[in-house]
Amino acid sequence: MRILGIDPGVATIGFGLVESNRAAVRLLQYGVITTPAGLPLSTRLRQISEDMTSLLEQFKPEEMAVEELFFSKNITTGIAVAHGRGVILLEAERAGVPTYEYTPMQVKQAVAGYGGAEKKQVMLMTQRLLKMKAVPRPDDAADALAVAICHGRSATSLLNMERKFDPSRYDTR
Amino acid sequence: MRILGIDPGVATIGFGLVESNRAAVRLLQYGVITTPAGLPLSTRLRQISEDMTSLLEQFKPEEMAVEELFFSKNITTGIAVAHGRGVILLEAERAGVPTYEYTPMQVKQAVAGYGGAEKKQVMLMTQRLLKMKAVPRPDDAADALAVAICHGRSATSLLNMERKFDPSRYDTR
Repeated sequence: MRILGIDPGVATIGFGLVESNRAAVRLLQYGVITTPAGLPLSTRLRQISEDMTSLLEQFKPEEMAVEELFFSKNITTGIAVAHGRGVILLEAERAGVPTYEYTPMQVKQAVAGYGGAEKKQVMLMTQRLLKMKAVPRPDDAADALAVAICHGRSATSLLNMERKFDPSRYDTR
Repeated sequence: MRILGIDPGVATIGFGLVESNRAAVRLLQYGVITTPAGLPLSTRLRQISEDMTSLLEQFKPEEMAVEELFFSKNITTGIAVAHGRGVILLEAERAGVPTYEYTPMQVKQAVAGYGGAEKKQVMLMTQRLLKMKAVPRPDDAADALAVAICHGRSATSLLNMERKFDPSRYDTR
């Protein structure tokens, strides 16, 4: 299954495309979409919309994975990121790509093995799992790859459950 | 000038269309866009996107006005509203309608005469200025009309300034 992981934002949006099956996960593409700070928010959102549309057309992911937003410190940043995230979810929906959301703790758990893992450990495990020569850069792209890996592992286990118990469960998530 | 005021959200989005000139402001249309609570966020964002596109095509506003988001209490609600607001700003940008943002205090100042006005006073003044028989309902539509009136008054005064001082100022806001 082709999974597009996204680290949402307005200034920088990380993306990471992986091919995931029960046995392993393979790196296909990663990088960032950026928008210039000087432009009005509306214009930046339009650029994000267009770049996301291009990515989705080019990569043809079967599913998309995005981190849930949690903000305890900087609400202003959180509000801005949520504007970008709204546009990203919209474009996935338009492209017919189902989106799945994970908490930061779920991503850490799935990638590094425990929910309290440090950022650096998650990055090292991301590098290892994807057989990369170095930790993926920039951080936004690494985060996007981590959530894609997380979804690959969760989706696989859900598919296993589905076959045994409830075929409708996965579709209606 | 035809101004579309918007009270952003995900569950309920208020809209209010007014015709504003130096002398007065006139009510054209108002109402709400709603999305069902049971649907996934992505699906609701798509409905907002489609309804906003229809509104913009039907109403052909020259400018759009939206309140800035401030959240001190409920961050979770704020994050959700910002997702919807991102999609709303995107659709205005796509339709070529310039968007202007106002703080709640600016709206109160422009409509009720002082920035510390209570919500009820702002609604009564909105009713009076638009020569309505009752306070506009629901609240989201009333808020949308208030921000439209606010922009009408601000835009008019800016246009006045422009002519005297700097013609480029208004365009580059």
